[in-house]
Amino acid sequence: MIDYMEMALEEAKKAYLKDEVPVGCVIVYKDKIIAKAHNKREKNKHTYAHAEMLAIKKANKKLKSWRLEDCDIYITLEPCAMCAGAIMQARMRTVIYALKDNKSGALGGSFNLYENNFNHEVIVKKGPLEEESRSLIQSFFQKLRKK
Amino acid sequence: MIDYMEMALEEAKKAYLKDEVPVGCVIVYKDKIIAKAHNKREKNKHTYAHAEMLAIKKANKKLKSWRLEDCDIYITLEPCAMCAGAIMQARMRTVIYALKDNKSGALGGSFNLYENNFNHEVIVKKGPLEEESRSLIQSFFQKLRKK
Repeated sequence: MIDYMEMALEEAKKAYLKDEVPVGCVIVYKDKIIAKAHNKREKNKHTYAHAEMLAIKKANKKLKSWRLEDCDIYITLEPCAMCAGAIMQARMRTVIYALKDNKSGALGGSFNLYENNFNHEVIVKKGPLEEESRSLIQSFFQKLRKK
Repeated sequence: MIDYMEMALEEAKKAYLKDEVPVGCVIVYKDKIIAKAHNKREKNKHTYAHAEMLAIKKANKKLKSWRLEDCDIYITLEPCAMCAGAIMQARMRTVIYALKDNKSGALGGSFNLYENNFNHEVIVKKGPLEEESRSLIQSFFQKLRKK
């Protein structure tokens, strides 16, 4: 599990270097990473260019399906409602996130989207590398305030 | 308002003809339609090829921004959690939907996503053409069962 989260953190660092909020993720299917992505919202000027959404699109292409059953997503930050909704829409198996987001996290941090009625169940787990993810995000916002 | 919803219904009919769940929408900015789209999930094999998401992407391009402030979205069916989350992420002004979705509607039908804590408020309105939207969706599922 830690290897996958390390790869997600590598993605987050790429976002950091591009002056994007540093969030990264990987999608794992049958013990292999089939998609990885990082946040590109400012660069793409695109509402849903969050790491999770970009990775879902790549995984769709890889599996040639809008369903991503038996896939697990490792994210450095708890997903927002849009991304948590997309993970549910894709019928993914598990969400593992490193850092809780008390401001806009939709899987426990601010509220829990999955407490509502859905016809599929996604398992949610707290993953490793919380401190690493937090310090990356903190230094991003310090850099931003200095500008 | 009825004109915009009629355009959204026209989009839904395009989805129907392509054997996709018939949902359509338009995004309006300063009294002009800047984006219209219909559901293409089966054709695109893409988790988030819902009408709303495709229209948001077009509007992003039009306004050259991931923010769609002062935009209103007219949808023939109540949005799911992913789409309602994306509308919130885009900071849109108003959602107007024709038909409530008791199964997976995230703005009152199944649950209300916007009751949670967000740093923006999106106004939600019930729009016209409910019966037209319902009968289109019903005949889609009748057609599907016959196949």
